[in-house]
Amino acid sequence: MLSFKDIKFLLKNKKARDTQGLFVAEGRKLFLEAPKEDVEQVLMSKTFAGMHPEYIGMLKEHTDVIADIEDARFASLTDTKTPQGILTVIRKPHFDLQQTLAGSCPLIMILEDLQDPGNVGTILRTAEAAGVTAVFLTENCADLYSPKATRATMGSIYRVPHFHVSNAPELIEWLQEQCGVTSYAAHLRGTRSYTDCTYRKGSAFVIGNEGNGITDAAAEACGELIRIPMMGQVESLNAAMAAGVLMFEAQRQRRAL
Amino acid sequence: MLSFKDIKFLLKNKKARDTQGLFVAEGRKLFLEAPKEDVEQVLMSKTFAGMHPEYIGMLKEHTDVIADIEDARFASLTDTKTPQGILTVIRKPHFDLQQTLAGSCPLIMILEDLQDPGNVGTILRTAEAAGVTAVFLTENCADLYSPKATRATMGSIYRVPHFHVSNAPELIEWLQEQCGVTSYAAHLRGTRSYTDCTYRKGSAFVIGNEGNGITDAAAEACGELIRIPMMGQVESLNAAMAAGVLMFEAQRQRRAL
Repeated sequence: MLSFKDIKFLLKNKKARDTQGLFVAEGRKLFLEAPKEDVEQVLMSKTFAGMHPEYIGMLKEHTDVIADIEDARFASLTDTKTPQGILTVIRKPHFDLQQTLAGSCPLIMILEDLQDPGNVGTILRTAEAAGVTAVFLTENCADLYSPKATRATMGSIYRVPHFHVSNAPELIEWLQEQCGVTSYAAHLRGTRSYTDCTYRKGSAFVIGNEGNGITDAAAEACGELIRIPMMGQVESLNAAMAAGVLMFEAQRQRRAL
Repeated sequence: MLSFKDIKFLLKNKKARDTQGLFVAEGRKLFLEAPKEDVEQVLMSKTFAGMHPEYIGMLKEHTDVIADIEDARFASLTDTKTPQGILTVIRKPHFDLQQTLAGSCPLIMILEDLQDPGNVGTILRTAEAAGVTAVFLTENCADLYSPKATRATMGSIYRVPHFHVSNAPELIEWLQEQCGVTSYAAHLRGTRSYTDCTYRKGSAFVIGNEGNGITDAAAEACGELIRIPMMGQVESLNAAMAAGVLMFEAQRQRRAL
């Protein structure tokens, strides 16, 4: 059984999460939607357990459930201002790359060096809604298993196949060669509007770092640089917003088939 | 000239901002894009002023610029983890409702009781990019002039006409009667996909509270309940994301005219 110190460490430290293959999900939704077989341990504050006694039994046969933690001590575990009172320690999900990409016409998101964990998590959530096949994250991306990113996924972290890669350009080339997937990147040099391209065949969108956009190498590897037409004096959309607008345009085109 | 205590109060307290008609914008971008005539006071940390001496002169003729604040003292003013070192006290912008709605075919956002200041700010930013005519906020919305919302606007707060209203249903009816604007709300009871409606005429989108969605009264007042088709097990999109997807779909249709 993990100690409080272990759990605090898992919440704060990416290396600990990577080494142990575990992460800590906060809140009820992430507890309820977690694949039972992957849950390692559950912690509840006294108040939470008192208000939701039904939660205590749910996983008792599968795993260790500690349901009598003093509220103040529980609060000290997390950075959340108003913790819901339940933490779930979970083994990181593993997805099969070949199986994931086996279907026809995949729709793929490539996140290159995104810095904001909220953006990374929100993109996973939106990707599930838009029917995205897989999300790839470069190794310089904010950690999807950090508490903030995990919360922002609203449970999609369990269901959207996601994979880590060292860099975007090699992935873009590999997707083109192995799967016939064309990669598109929203870019200042892009000339065609994103609504003028067709995403009905296998397609990938590359989303770049919040401050710097996508790297030159990734832009060069892409089949097409596109732009999201913007009015006013706006220089760029929020990275998750740009991702959402692109994914739902692809979904719109695919539904219209 | 405002004291440190006054400024702290403006940063933390909505009532103080409402009563005084002032707000405090953090960071360089919001300083540089602020309408000069509305700036009341500028504060810089010693380090910031040393690194950017050109900023000191920019508004000196218009307003009070304090450029010698000890870094630790400056940091104590804000909640930002790594403050950029510049705060701008600004009079809230005022927009003319009649003038704003005078053009044909307005595209309008109605934010009903949104709770997350980051969502409110992000919607303003995205609204500018999507060419939205005006954003309306109900009085139970998170304050657009709070530091978090202001930062998320990335400067759009100065440029996107926005208005406060007591509630959404009356506004929806007023927009229909006075301006011929049809209001659409993404709703669980919605049957038509958002991509099957036409937003080329005057249109408004109602975005509801993050937890509860839009109120029944607002849903009833709307001309049409729509839905954003979602795959997987996702119950809803993030409120700002839903707003962005709808605004850019309207923009796509309008560009195609």
